[in-house]
Amino acid sequence: MENMVRKEEDVTYLNHIRDCNRLESISYLPFIVQETTLGWVRQDRANILKEYGDIISVRDSFLSFAPSIATSEYETAIAVLVDRLTEAGHVAPKRNELYDVARRVRAPALFRMERAAVSFFGIAACGVHLNGYVRKNDNMFLWIGKRANDRRIEPGKLDNIVAGGQPSGLSLRDNLIKEAAEEAAMPRTLAMRARPVGMVRYCLDTGTGLRRDTLFCYDLDLSEGFIPHNADGETDSFHLLSLEEVCRLMRETKDFKFNVPLVIIDFLIRHGYLSADNETDYAALCLGLHGVEHPFPA
Amino acid sequence: MENMVRKEEDVTYLNHIRDCNRLESISYLPFIVQETTLGWVRQDRANILKEYGDIISVRDSFLSFAPSIATSEYETAIAVLVDRLTEAGHVAPKRNELYDVARRVRAPALFRMERAAVSFFGIAACGVHLNGYVRKNDNMFLWIGKRANDRRIEPGKLDNIVAGGQPSGLSLRDNLIKEAAEEAAMPRTLAMRARPVGMVRYCLDTGTGLRRDTLFCYDLDLSEGFIPHNADGETDSFHLLSLEEVCRLMRETKDFKFNVPLVIIDFLIRHGYLSADNETDYAALCLGLHGVEHPFPA
Repeated sequence: MENMVRKEEDVTYLNHIRDCNRLESISYLPFIVQETTLGWVRQDRANILKEYGDIISVRDSFLSFAPSIATSEYETAIAVLVDRLTEAGHVAPKRNELYDVARRVRAPALFRMERAAVSFFGIAACGVHLNGYVRKNDNMFLWIGKRANDRRIEPGKLDNIVAGGQPSGLSLRDNLIKEAAEEAAMPRTLAMRARPVGMVRYCLDTGTGLRRDTLFCYDLDLSEGFIPHNADGETDSFHLLSLEEVCRLMRETKDFKFNVPLVIIDFLIRHGYLSADNETDYAALCLGLHGVEHPFPA
Repeated sequence: MENMVRKEEDVTYLNHIRDCNRLESISYLPFIVQETTLGWVRQDRANILKEYGDIISVRDSFLSFAPSIATSEYETAIAVLVDRLTEAGHVAPKRNELYDVARRVRAPALFRMERAAVSFFGIAACGVHLNGYVRKNDNMFLWIGKRANDRRIEPGKLDNIVAGGQPSGLSLRDNLIKEAAEEAAMPRTLAMRARPVGMVRYCLDTGTGLRRDTLFCYDLDLSEGFIPHNADGETDSFHLLSLEEVCRLMRETKDFKFNVPLVIIDFLIRHGYLSADNETDYAALCLGLHGVEHPFPA
């Protein structure tokens, strides 16, 4: 079983990690609030922000709120700024979902910000991803969703059975349960059995923003007959694929949404399908999944 | 179950990671061989090496083999140097075990070096650690070994059921099987069922050397009645401890060998006993186990 995962001619798993960790060779300025670096703004994006000096001060080496903005006004001020950036086309259309902006992942929010604007400021974001797996005899299968063709991000790509960004005000588990109901019509009692198993992290400049993402990973044994079906229109269809087929798709195609292979590679590592004896890149994969090479701290 | 692991007044799990990642505020010089940095030598240790200029060249900003040493002579030359360093008391007594010195963890060896001298040169080393666990109903237990009182390193401390450094010439799995037989009298057929589940990494200056260690972690379900007993005199006794008790010992005592809590914290994360909802330090733990804050690359 261990030997199935890697062949000489393959696209390496490491390539998926590299694809999630691309940065432009342009300088990034820290966005500093209350003496903490909350985000990293690319120089050309910082230049755009110079037009909004009533809200953001752009200095030579860092950004901060304009001196006139009080702590209690951060959230309102950012909302006004995001509206203007959206109107000017610098930020993707609003999704009307508020993200927590905090000193570190899952710490209490200093203020909240429209999800669509988070990456413009290079602010750390997080989400939950679920590996829904089925064991049949000694064979492992994964439930894989195909994203609807009308989704704004990565339409038609393959995805985990359940995945979603982390909105403000929910625990990770409650978010997972909510997403599992919406995306896969999974009963609450079943979703509650999902087990937190770690996290992966990456840092990617998408051209419109810097995604500094942490994905909290969950495993759920679905051997007992649950069949997912989509409830919110975000997923086109679900497929129960053998692990061999999932690995083949990761190695030979770009069919997966860009960040999903990281969650699955972590699954392969934790379940013993990869080892340092059979995978040359093992240490680099283990470290890369946690962003060891990141220029920007967690 | 998730709530049992952390109490407000506890020593944090993060402290164990910090304890494994202490460096002196003295500069370290890279030890460069064939244009690759193989090790990091503290300035005061580099000064000692100036006495052995026939083998090692110590420059202002790096160390290398003396120009007269050919590639094929690296291993012999280092062996001579280590003998002299051991005689002079700079390196602990030889253990007559050869470690691979490679461009990166588990890559082909450029040369081999006596295990006792690896940390003097700050060369990356690796080993295998096994979590031997038992499930009874919904309760989790771990087999914990107590190290013999006459061991050179950390006598009397608590350890994983099986753990050992990685000697030259064995696969990780074969080493695990060998150590499992020697340390716990575990049959080969049982040890072969151990599952590779990832790795943890740390970087620690012990005062006599810089340990840049990667521990490859394995899980083995021992629910079916195996009772370990020591075969090589390195372990005093084995104890089947509830996970609650293991966690209490990690939080309230220094009873574990310094690097073992990292392996167990990784186990807690992978098996869902910690989550970002119940553990404030979760992201820092996940990253810290992989050495995200290391000043020295993998």
